[in-house]
Amino acid sequence: MADITFADRATVADLEEGAEFAPKFDAAGLIPCVTTDAATGEPLMFAYMNAEALRQTITLGEAVYYSRSRQELWHKGATSGHVQTVVEMRVDCDQDCIWLRVDTGGKASCHVGYRSCFFRSVPVGTAEAGGVTLRFEETEKLFDPKQVYGQ
Amino acid sequence: MADITFADRATVADLEEGAEFAPKFDAAGLIPCVTTDAATGEPLMFAYMNAEALRQTITLGEAVYYSRSRQELWHKGATSGHVQTVVEMRVDCDQDCIWLRVDTGGKASCHVGYRSCFFRSVPVGTAEAGGVTLRFEETEKLFDPKQVYGQ
Repeated sequence: MADITFADRATVADLEEGAEFAPKFDAAGLIPCVTTDAATGEPLMFAYMNAEALRQTITLGEAVYYSRSRQELWHKGATSGHVQTVVEMRVDCDQDCIWLRVDTGGKASCHVGYRSCFFRSVPVGTAEAGGVTLRFEETEKLFDPKQVYGQ
Repeated sequence: MADITFADRATVADLEEGAEFAPKFDAAGLIPCVTTDAATGEPLMFAYMNAEALRQTITLGEAVYYSRSRQELWHKGATSGHVQTVVEMRVDCDQDCIWLRVDTGGKASCHVGYRSCFFRSVPVGTAEAGGVTLRFEETEKLFDPKQVYGQ
């Protein structure tokens, strides 16, 4: 695996207008990552990467995250087979967020079984006082989590 | 403004399969938010909301974030005029990330002047050892930050 290095965080002008990749990892060593479907543009999931996950994603061309709950590198699809092939990687202005455009091969990205983790909408602009009821925008799961992950 | 309440965080099954909106705010009281262009699907920016920003976004139908650097509510466009009208709000499986689909009226979303904060790409799959050089995917700014925000 190529020994990729990240630049030091220099001035705001360098970070925002320059061409050196100097990603910002937070106090826990993580950078947030938004993953969208390269074909439809739909956000599929939101996760975190540590430096090693980011290096592996760049080198492999497949999405590798860091699981905060399991505290380990998370090569997406290692268990489920639902690998995400990276079509494009972007970084935002202050280099503290990664955006991946991926090809899922039509497979689900959400561990609950849906295509996207964002399968429910929140009503906006018509809110009444009190609780908010979500609406399911995806109604059919692409797989049964119990069959893929076990109990 | 409607007094919107958020549900308590119950079981994983409730959070992931239920219809109660129970967003998770982190230790700093924030939830991450991905904002995409409702027309093109392109991610525009990544920011955070606190509970009040989330309530105001739902009620106003315009994006209100929380600025970590300024430590205050941030009604997007209050200074620049580049208001983001919310077309749809979604929440992810474990309800710890918000996705906004917005109409920008063709205005820029990045304070640097670009349409999207994600105006640079990171080369993937062809990485050599050493530093990584970003590529500008947007080459023209939609506005001059100095004219809009001052020095």
